[in-house]
Amino acid sequence: MISERCAACKNQRRKCPSDCIFSPCFPANDPQKFACVHKIYGGSNVGKMLQGIPTYLREQAANALYLEAKWRIHDPVYGCVGIISSLYEQIQNAEIELAKIQTQITFYKLQTQRVEAEPNSEVLQAQSSNMEQFEWDNPTIASWFN
Amino acid sequence: MISERCAACKNQRRKCPSDCIFSPCFPANDPQKFACVHKIYGGSNVGKMLQGIPTYLREQAANALYLEAKWRIHDPVYGCVGIISSLYEQIQNAEIELAKIQTQITFYKLQTQRVEAEPNSEVLQAQSSNMEQFEWDNPTIASWFN
Repeated sequence: MISERCAACKNQRRKCPSDCIFSPCFPANDPQKFACVHKIYGGSNVGKMLQGIPTYLREQAANALYLEAKWRIHDPVYGCVGIISSLYEQIQNAEIELAKIQTQITFYKLQTQRVEAEPNSEVLQAQSSNMEQFEWDNPTIASWFN
Repeated sequence: MISERCAACKNQRRKCPSDCIFSPCFPANDPQKFACVHKIYGGSNVGKMLQGIPTYLREQAANALYLEAKWRIHDPVYGCVGIISSLYEQIQNAEIELAKIQTQITFYKLQTQRVEAEPNSEVLQAQSSNMEQFEWDNPTIASWFN
């Protein structure tokens, strides 16, 4: 009895050898996975890439290739570079928000120092209301904490 | 006189037609760009992908493919999926740091409210020194602002 062919060998309509390089990475029950990488890289390029990777890392490499291929099919212009740009942008925005918060913390610290030296200072109340305003104006941070 | 062949046609040792799909994306003076995408996707797959994209977006698509191919050559197991994971991790860490900072801000706010109600409170001084400690213990935020 011939054992079941892997998704790659099924797709390529060939016999699946016992030492098939695709078999551990592209199981027969997930034909979509091989179809995606085949569409973007071509089957023989995928085989060449897997060949250059230690056996124990091949499945992870195949999963990463599958994700990249899916993103490229989803966004044929930017692929996963589009995702990377958007994540960089998020980090940049977080840095801006953090810088704003650090400024606010510095104000609070100065304020508390002033209050320690001069307990009845009126500036404190004005500063507190500025802080409320800052938090309301800050949808990015708000969304992270919701 | 025959015009100079693009990097793709030079690599494939063929004549570069006037309507060559590779020519605007792979100029002759940057042979490395085509060599990279050729190694990962294969020349004909790159051609097929560009064919499916509107002309004005092809150069951007070729640049994204080049970046992905470079990352895949640099990291044959994870490629740009590795970069995406690391950026997600950075964002997650930033969220944790922000949550900590928000907690500190809440403390400060409560503190200033307490001082307003009770100007000579001794808790204020202890709180200020906690805040100093928090900032010293926070290398992620420190590195973002250096």
